[in-house]
Amino acid sequence: MKIIVLNKSLKEGHIDKIRKTAERIGAEVFFGKDESEIPAEFSSADVLYGFGMETAKKSKDLKWLCVPSAGVDYLMKPGCFANEECLLTNSSGAYGVTIAEHMIAVSLMMMRNMTVIHEESLRGEWGSPRPQRSLKDCRITVLGTGDIGRAFAKRARAFEPAAVTGVSRSGICDDPSFDKVLKISELDGILPGTDLLAMSLPDTPETRNVLSAERLALLPEGSYVVNVGRGSAIDETALAVFLESGHLAGAALDVFHTEPLPKDSPLWKIKNLLITPHVAGNLTLDHTLDKNVDMFLEDLENYAEGLPLKHLVDRNKGY
Amino acid sequence: MKIIVLNKSLKEGHIDKIRKTAERIGAEVFFGKDESEIPAEFSSADVLYGFGMETAKKSKDLKWLCVPSAGVDYLMKPGCFANEECLLTNSSGAYGVTIAEHMIAVSLMMMRNMTVIHEESLRGEWGSPRPQRSLKDCRITVLGTGDIGRAFAKRARAFEPAAVTGVSRSGICDDPSFDKVLKISELDGILPGTDLLAMSLPDTPETRNVLSAERLALLPEGSYVVNVGRGSAIDETALAVFLESGHLAGAALDVFHTEPLPKDSPLWKIKNLLITPHVAGNLTLDHTLDKNVDMFLEDLENYAEGLPLKHLVDRNKGY
Repeated sequence: MKIIVLNKSLKEGHIDKIRKTAERIGAEVFFGKDESEIPAEFSSADVLYGFGMETAKKSKDLKWLCVPSAGVDYLMKPGCFANEECLLTNSSGAYGVTIAEHMIAVSLMMMRNMTVIHEESLRGEWGSPRPQRSLKDCRITVLGTGDIGRAFAKRARAFEPAAVTGVSRSGICDDPSFDKVLKISELDGILPGTDLLAMSLPDTPETRNVLSAERLALLPEGSYVVNVGRGSAIDETALAVFLESGHLAGAALDVFHTEPLPKDSPLWKIKNLLITPHVAGNLTLDHTLDKNVDMFLEDLENYAEGLPLKHLVDRNKGY
Repeated sequence: MKIIVLNKSLKEGHIDKIRKTAERIGAEVFFGKDESEIPAEFSSADVLYGFGMETAKKSKDLKWLCVPSAGVDYLMKPGCFANEECLLTNSSGAYGVTIAEHMIAVSLMMMRNMTVIHEESLRGEWGSPRPQRSLKDCRITVLGTGDIGRAFAKRARAFEPAAVTGVSRSGICDDPSFDKVLKISELDGILPGTDLLAMSLPDTPETRNVLSAERLALLPEGSYVVNVGRGSAIDETALAVFLESGHLAGAALDVFHTEPLPKDSPLWKIKNLLITPHVAGNLTLDHTLDKNVDMFLEDLENYAEGLPLKHLVDRNKGY
């Protein structure tokens, strides 16, 4: 068996760990930064762990692609795999901790006007106290109750919110961090009672434009929106209107319809929009990278023994 | 009985509540914004709730001053009270929630480079991922285990830190948010195992310069300091040196030796120092103000019935 590992963030410890598992299952491994470095003798490799989109498109021999991302929308179009039977796993489950920390950070930054205070401080100005809002007594709705939504709900709970309501496709989630979990069809009912809408949805036909202009209008005056899932979930043009009118107190977006956000996007200029460049779940955090590698190795053992892969993507659902 | 209430942030509901209690105990109340508004007929009032430093200094009739702040250091000097028997209560206990939220916000902002990301976004730049740190697996030491330290520890716990160690004068605190609580004499032992030092101490002779140059050197390379108590607790000059050398990864100060921080202070220019203008505990948050008023009214009932006041400051301790 031949395995390609493409990841420029891996540390010595990760490489050792992968090497040892490969040895045990009798596989050869090539480590590289990206697809341009793959040597000829690995061009017909069985397994690729990393962003191997070009390889998946060309190689009929590739039997399993494991991507280090949670989202796999970019692999759902026809023609992405030369081998139609190629297995696809993702790393959903590795990002909950880091993305939840981002969500708490940006929520508090908005509620406490931290960006304005920081801008004053950059100018050497000692600002005046400003109105503050709080996660305490806040009605939080978490759209998407996967690993990320659950990790966020757990942390948000400690701030004594009025309620943490999950919303998911099934309406089923037994995580105790949620007071209740609703079906996506019940979303319109909860939006008027939402002070903070936290979105961590994958990109699927069902999630596209889920926060439409009509639904933005259902959010109460002075509410906040955080999105760390996929940009396609929000009508960006409508969001801009609701931010500029002040209907929304603020929004924090880490994901956008087009990334990088184009230089001439009007979004850059909106004062109450906190823009981060898709970094909520970057791989620099040790914990994230450790978990990412562990999840691959867990499935590598499964693969070698002919067992079902644990982190397999459901191509019908798209995540 | 005559009561003066000075607080420009009070809302109609608070004023009603105070009026009703005053009526019940047969007291007259004057509401104003500051001491300049006090009318002649209230110049010999018995009770003042608010920042009434000038009144306390001049009036021999004032029997009880209740300040809306938690810190009372500014009232500990000789000559602050014309009536030496004047009772002093503070509002410690009203600020835990809002200041703890500030502490979590600034900790995550530092660990996730949020200020740098925001500065890039102000310039319309889509930045690259940067190294991130996390509250997960972080060794947190909380210096000061009062209301603020406990509220912070509770919230920090939800982020799955490696340890949350409290440090207090007595070394005693049974709050389950702390893994253990040490005496201040044991501080030097815990500093080398501290990734995040969160300080919420009152200003007293014992807390002045508690984070000295020697103790800053005991903190490990790459650690963070947050201070929301009083500026006097830190050797600011030494802190600047440790920040600029990179020994400290970052610090977030809401309090300073001199406030407002002077225009020409070198602290403004330190890139890894997050400066906020003593706003962590401002009174704009409904919850803070509600609790502040409730604590005063609780003691107003006690006062009227000749019972001991619950929020009395221990002048020997200074808090």
